[in-house]
Amino acid sequence: MFSHLAWHDVDTPLIICCWLTCIILAKIIFHKSRIGHYIPESSLLITLGLIAGYILDHLFVWDIYLHPDLFFLYLLPPIALEAGYMLPFRMFFKNIGTILLYAVVGTCLNILFISGILYLFSSFYQQSIPYIDLLLFSTLISAVDPVAVLSVFEEIHVNQLLYINVFGESLLNDAVVIVLYHSLAHMATIEQIESYHINDAILSFATVATGGVIIGLLFVIFTAFSTKLSVKIPVVQPLISLLLPYCCYLTCESVHMSGIIGIVTCGLMMKPYLDGNLSDKMKTTTKYFMKTLSNTCEAIVFLFLGLSVFSKSHIWDFVFATVTVVACVTVRFFVVIPLTSIANRFRVKRIALVDQAIISYGGLRGAICYGLVQTLDQDVILAKDMMITTTVVVIVFTVFIQGSTIKPLVRLLRVKTEEDKPQLISTQVLNNFADDVMAGIEAVIGRKGGNYYRRRLSAFNHNVLEPNLMLKPTSRGSRLVEKVCEMNNEEIRRNLLQEYQV
Amino acid sequence: MFSHLAWHDVDTPLIICCWLTCIILAKIIFHKSRIGHYIPESSLLITLGLIAGYILDHLFVWDIYLHPDLFFLYLLPPIALEAGYMLPFRMFFKNIGTILLYAVVGTCLNILFISGILYLFSSFYQQSIPYIDLLLFSTLISAVDPVAVLSVFEEIHVNQLLYINVFGESLLNDAVVIVLYHSLAHMATIEQIESYHINDAILSFATVATGGVIIGLLFVIFTAFSTKLSVKIPVVQPLISLLLPYCCYLTCESVHMSGIIGIVTCGLMMKPYLDGNLSDKMKTTTKYFMKTLSNTCEAIVFLFLGLSVFSKSHIWDFVFATVTVVACVTVRFFVVIPLTSIANRFRVKRIALVDQAIISYGGLRGAICYGLVQTLDQDVILAKDMMITTTVVVIVFTVFIQGSTIKPLVRLLRVKTEEDKPQLISTQVLNNFADDVMAGIEAVIGRKGGNYYRRRLSAFNHNVLEPNLMLKPTSRGSRLVEKVCEMNNEEIRRNLLQEYQV
Repeated sequence: MFSHLAWHDVDTPLIICCWLTCIILAKIIFHKSRIGHYIPESSLLITLGLIAGYILDHLFVWDIYLHPDLFFLYLLPPIALEAGYMLPFRMFFKNIGTILLYAVVGTCLNILFISGILYLFSSFYQQSIPYIDLLLFSTLISAVDPVAVLSVFEEIHVNQLLYINVFGESLLNDAVVIVLYHSLAHMATIEQIESYHINDAILSFATVATGGVIIGLLFVIFTAFSTKLSVKIPVVQPLISLLLPYCCYLTCESVHMSGIIGIVTCGLMMKPYLDGNLSDKMKTTTKYFMKTLSNTCEAIVFLFLGLSVFSKSHIWDFVFATVTVVACVTVRFFVVIPLTSIANRFRVKRIALVDQAIISYGGLRGAICYGLVQTLDQDVILAKDMMITTTVVVIVFTVFIQGSTIKPLVRLLRVKTEEDKPQLISTQVLNNFADDVMAGIEAVIGRKGGNYYRRRLSAFNHNVLEPNLMLKPTSRGSRLVEKVCEMNNEEIRRNLLQEYQV
Repeated sequence: MFSHLAWHDVDTPLIICCWLTCIILAKIIFHKSRIGHYIPESSLLITLGLIAGYILDHLFVWDIYLHPDLFFLYLLPPIALEAGYMLPFRMFFKNIGTILLYAVVGTCLNILFISGILYLFSSFYQQSIPYIDLLLFSTLISAVDPVAVLSVFEEIHVNQLLYINVFGESLLNDAVVIVLYHSLAHMATIEQIESYHINDAILSFATVATGGVIIGLLFVIFTAFSTKLSVKIPVVQPLISLLLPYCCYLTCESVHMSGIIGIVTCGLMMKPYLDGNLSDKMKTTTKYFMKTLSNTCEAIVFLFLGLSVFSKSHIWDFVFATVTVVACVTVRFFVVIPLTSIANRFRVKRIALVDQAIISYGGLRGAICYGLVQTLDQDVILAKDMMITTTVVVIVFTVFIQGSTIKPLVRLLRVKTEEDKPQLISTQVLNNFADDVMAGIEAVIGRKGGNYYRRRLSAFNHNVLEPNLMLKPTSRGSRLVEKVCEMNNEEIRRNLLQEYQV
């Protein structure tokens, strides 16, 4: 009577708030208790989801599962954006060749091997599933999940080289998997597959990925522009930095390009512009709010994955599930190791054998597999329910068993770990200097390598974009000079003393 | 074919994103052009809404208006939270008496006078509207809108005394209006009104307001607790600081207490705990994200108000609208001036006549009126459509004409304005010292005044909450001591030189 909002108006947001409060409470309890030291948070959240799912399933007849739309429209974009924004720019581009090798060639090999193994077993076994269905299933099960990988690797602090390779692969292979998945889902409806269908699929992969990158870059320009123009109204800047990348994702998806590639590109490339255009306060706000948002979305994803175990439509097939789990884990080793030996031929800094073991072992599966398996068409893929169950088993296995044992394994194999220490100004100066020298050497010998293109891009930003478009990206060099100019002698002396530990 | 998300999945978020992008663009254009210097942003956004509404209305047959649920559930809470969080704590409690006088007594007088004037006119005029309907309408039209007030007063930088009185009133009178509105809406359905109905209304007002405060305080304890416990996982802290106050709002509304009082209390009182528990980075993130969010919600509200002008259900009644506008503007003067003279008798620092003029003139109406008028029951209040139109007229008039002329008026009347300057440490120390001395004097003479209760609250926080509940609010005094202890002699010398401008 005394309020215009009745319970039925308030219930949806209140239920969402209650779930979020549960997640916060769970996180606090994990961190306060000693469990958090041994088991990654993602496994614990899945367990929480399992328990909650069990209770809800027994109390109410409620069929909760992670709806693919919810995941692909609202939960994935913030996670992908934060991943792109936090990706170490320099390391990513230095390793782009290896990452692409893993993400494209590696994923295709994974799919072929897994589908082969599954086909062999299913033909021996009572039921026979068409090869194209198994190929489709192998495709989605090969998607290494950036969310799962990030949540585990952030805790174990491996060296940056290993981190960037595993994480970069998991980001890019999603695009490969999603495109292949849709091509195959289309093929599964065709009676007779001709060679031009396969050509189409390859062509469409190239289009979808390139389209994503191009739309991403377009939105980088929009973001750079609008943050530059809104320097006097800082209050809208965090909104711009979150809204435009999300627009980019939606635009990509609505024109059937890869949204995940688009938003990662946008997040990665907009960073220097935000660094230049946002004040320190707004930069902190944007960065940490992105972190909070993506962390929350991750937690929701894992909780829902746990809840999904009690979904009504499961069909358990023990043999199929076991074979899939074993295939997923072992095939990755047989793919990563030969590919790395090829990559090492072209690398200056080689990837060690222990690092290869961790790359293979760190191929965790997560919500992307689950989202894709849910979107399968029941009328075309008759074994859909069994595939859902198997996917849940693979996710729970990789996140639980592999996720929990990777930390001891890293210690056992004595993998080089990284310490979180702020980069010293002298290191930064030397790095920039080395880059410039390398670019100079490349110019002298007339070879156009990575350094050459890096210089060209930075020159393009400075000379072309700046005067006409009023964009001013921060070059690290000029920032350092500014920093030094702002310092007085006393501060410089203190810094030097600290750096050289005199 | 190559994407799982089709256009019909993506369209809702994409349309929302497009509107937000339009708002950002509009803000940038306002600030870059010189219009922004003369007309407040709120008026400009209403104009933009008007233009967009006109175009959409002519292109499509689309009935867009600000749905009350959207406003009360999603747009109002962030604005109220930010308002509470940013409210100057000290000034607010120093002026609480005057603010309550304006908000409770003032609003009731406003309602009575406006309804009287409208009743007189409507009985002379062709149509006769029942007095209870007019009383209901007068109630909702008396709601001074914190959003409109804030958006205008933030730009003109009046002195803090004036600001806190206008803004504090607008925050609290909403609660009064909302409660009265619901009591009256209930009464309008009753044939014969007895005196106990009026007693009930008064009682329910007290319950609803107190209930809001109590629930707000409960959530302050939850927030203080959870931020204290999550010091090691800072990434969830901004989420806690936004989520729990929103939960507070929803809880209040679901148990029929005043959500707006609840969330303002929560925002206001949680601040010292967040100051103590959050790191500087997280504090910045929380504060500026709140600002961005509330700023965006405000912009959406004004844009929608403009769009609402072209809603299909309008019935224009020129005389009724004119009488209402004139009554709203003039009655406020006749209420504020006598009330201030009463308040001034009890005040040490009196409110000057020019300040009273600005308080009267600054009673802008906004979305709360609109939200309430939309929730009227068409079957009970036959003149609903005419009332909606009149409300839109009043809002547009007050925001446009009063909002744009208040800045020149402030200059004309030579109202004391405030400069934005950071408080010096010496001023803070002196203020704290003065507070302590005042509390001491009150203790000596045995009177329990505001200073006594402030000391008691702070002592309660320190002695009772801290050791048992592990909460540690920052008392400004102890923070200052910490600050000074962290400084070395050189820094102290530099600060002193700067403060005394030697």
